[in-house]
Amino acid sequence: MGEQDSAGSDLFLRLLLDGRPRTRAELVDSSGLGRSTVNIRIESLLSTGLVVPYDDAESTGGRPAARFRFNPAALVILAADIGATHVTVALTDLHGEILDRANTPLSIAEGPEAVLRTVAKTGRALLRSTGRAKTELAGIGIGLPGPVEHSTGRPNHPPIMPGWDAYDVAGRLRDEFAVPVLVDNDVNIMALGEHATQYAEVEHLLFLKVATGIGAGIISGGRLHRGAQGAAGDIGHIQTPGNTEMCRCGNLGCLEAVASASALAAKLDGASSSQDIVDLVRAGNTAATSAVRQAGREIGTVLAAAVNLLNPSVIVVGGSLSQAGDSLLAGIRETLYARSLPLATTGLRIVTAHAGQDAALRGAAILVQQHVLAL
Amino acid sequence: MGEQDSAGSDLFLRLLLDGRPRTRAELVDSSGLGRSTVNIRIESLLSTGLVVPYDDAESTGGRPAARFRFNPAALVILAADIGATHVTVALTDLHGEILDRANTPLSIAEGPEAVLRTVAKTGRALLRSTGRAKTELAGIGIGLPGPVEHSTGRPNHPPIMPGWDAYDVAGRLRDEFAVPVLVDNDVNIMALGEHATQYAEVEHLLFLKVATGIGAGIISGGRLHRGAQGAAGDIGHIQTPGNTEMCRCGNLGCLEAVASASALAAKLDGASSSQDIVDLVRAGNTAATSAVRQAGREIGTVLAAAVNLLNPSVIVVGGSLSQAGDSLLAGIRETLYARSLPLATTGLRIVTAHAGQDAALRGAAILVQQHVLAL
Repeated sequence: MGEQDSAGSDLFLRLLLDGRPRTRAELVDSSGLGRSTVNIRIESLLSTGLVVPYDDAESTGGRPAARFRFNPAALVILAADIGATHVTVALTDLHGEILDRANTPLSIAEGPEAVLRTVAKTGRALLRSTGRAKTELAGIGIGLPGPVEHSTGRPNHPPIMPGWDAYDVAGRLRDEFAVPVLVDNDVNIMALGEHATQYAEVEHLLFLKVATGIGAGIISGGRLHRGAQGAAGDIGHIQTPGNTEMCRCGNLGCLEAVASASALAAKLDGASSSQDIVDLVRAGNTAATSAVRQAGREIGTVLAAAVNLLNPSVIVVGGSLSQAGDSLLAGIRETLYARSLPLATTGLRIVTAHAGQDAALRGAAILVQQHVLAL
Repeated sequence: MGEQDSAGSDLFLRLLLDGRPRTRAELVDSSGLGRSTVNIRIESLLSTGLVVPYDDAESTGGRPAARFRFNPAALVILAADIGATHVTVALTDLHGEILDRANTPLSIAEGPEAVLRTVAKTGRALLRSTGRAKTELAGIGIGLPGPVEHSTGRPNHPPIMPGWDAYDVAGRLRDEFAVPVLVDNDVNIMALGEHATQYAEVEHLLFLKVATGIGAGIISGGRLHRGAQGAAGDIGHIQTPGNTEMCRCGNLGCLEAVASASALAAKLDGASSSQDIVDLVRAGNTAATSAVRQAGREIGTVLAAAVNLLNPSVIVVGGSLSQAGDSLLAGIRETLYARSLPLATTGLRIVTAHAGQDAALRGAAILVQQHVLAL
């Protein structure tokens, strides 16, 4: 399929993807395609089940259906959110709506074989529980907690994933399921999922994950901005003014070294994880609240640079530390507004993530949707 | 013309825009459009002159032409690069190739009426000198040295343009020439021009202008990233670590306050403009060379943040101070490589701008090309 041909497909499926039934004449008019081309494409989509006849009140009797609609139930998507200590797998329809899911506690350090075996096993169980066949699988989408070369589906020197570097994640699952496998880092899929479920109309969005590490996913012109090597959004290693903490990347004063949950836990008594910090803040612990607020200020300083560069209209703050309540956002707003140009913050919304863990699963499903439907 | 229809136009013209002649059958195959749609579109494009029959060696005798090609000479574009102290206007073909040009020294502070009257007068003179009629004008593209709301074509609180705030630049020229008028800031049009003429195959590029002020133009996925308010690329007001110089924006330690030509000129004896600084560096003046190198280091620190965020494959450094030779780039490389993640600088090229002043004119023409041809 040539580029032009797939661009044609684009348009045609995108028209139907909104769920509104359309007649052949409407599809000819709004696609700009010829009548015979439209007929051929409808036949082809009817045969795959991606498009179905729409039976409305005015029955057409024995004649061919007058209208057609996209059928998100035609195929299913396997979406996996692989974290440092969990493997969550869902089966979704072609819109990314979750049909069923399962969570398995598992350390990423067990290595790719053990983790991907769990993904495959859980995937087969979900197909059974939902009564779908392996042949109905459109593709597999996977989010990993580290840098991924999206074009090949291989992790690229991931710091917290021993044994995963350059491992052929996509190939391993493609061999077993014989479908397209799309792999990206967790922040990118959370950005995709949050954008699709909460801010579909927004052109420019920045998703920030604040957890053990700090990373960003950038939506530019409605699409994920991955950059030349898929390394875009690495906001955690931008230098914060006036800090000299040693970062695990080998540099000094990186945002991650001063404002991540690990950085905060190292400084707070009785905290070893972001959940501990969230619990302390919720319990009214002053040191924890003050530390989270200061982390917000450091994040805001770096986000100000991102706002001046990218001028997004929405910044979504997610990740486990975003559960610490208003202190983080208050700190972010303090320095972000102080260091951004007025024009760039006109109408800027800074919000906490809504979609929660679903964002990652939905985003992983959207990777597949966009690829399979050539969107 | 609906969105879907223009998406169809897109594809069809984009196919022909490479200049390669194609048969009707080739256009049907590669556009995915129906034969009758292709015939209608060819007739319509032939009637406007945007497409012409291609006569090759194998003559077709009296039969209809076998092949068709895009005709960049069908219409002309008026492109204007308005700087702080000059108005340069060019007439280009639909590819943005410059047919003729004229430069007028004029201060932007003369206000919009005087400056745009000069643009219009020069435009009419160029139409006469190239023997083209006003009816052959496809549109007007304009670059201004300040923030512009691209959607309305009005400057947005431009700091060095007294009398221009919210002035209807597009309307003023549309009234006179009755064609679409596209307005953007000078850095964005330089980014577009440099990208189109030198790096058309590059997906992710960052153009940096270092002159009286400092700004950036961002190409993401092959397209200009303007951001929510058209304010993207404002790299000059990102805070540099360890500096407290007062900036004209009212904040302290902005990149522009420590590394722009104005900041350097204020510190160097015998320099009041970027040209003076360039002359001093070329004459081997140690203080000037050292100041330019240090400016490069400050720029590199901020660019490192942009590289971590955006992961471009090319950074183009332009603007008058880029003429100071290797010192600026050497300084930029020093700190940029020190503060960027290894993955993001794999294969990153940092180069001086090639297209020179033509970049702005070509970029202004491309604004019109993309709008008129619905690319």
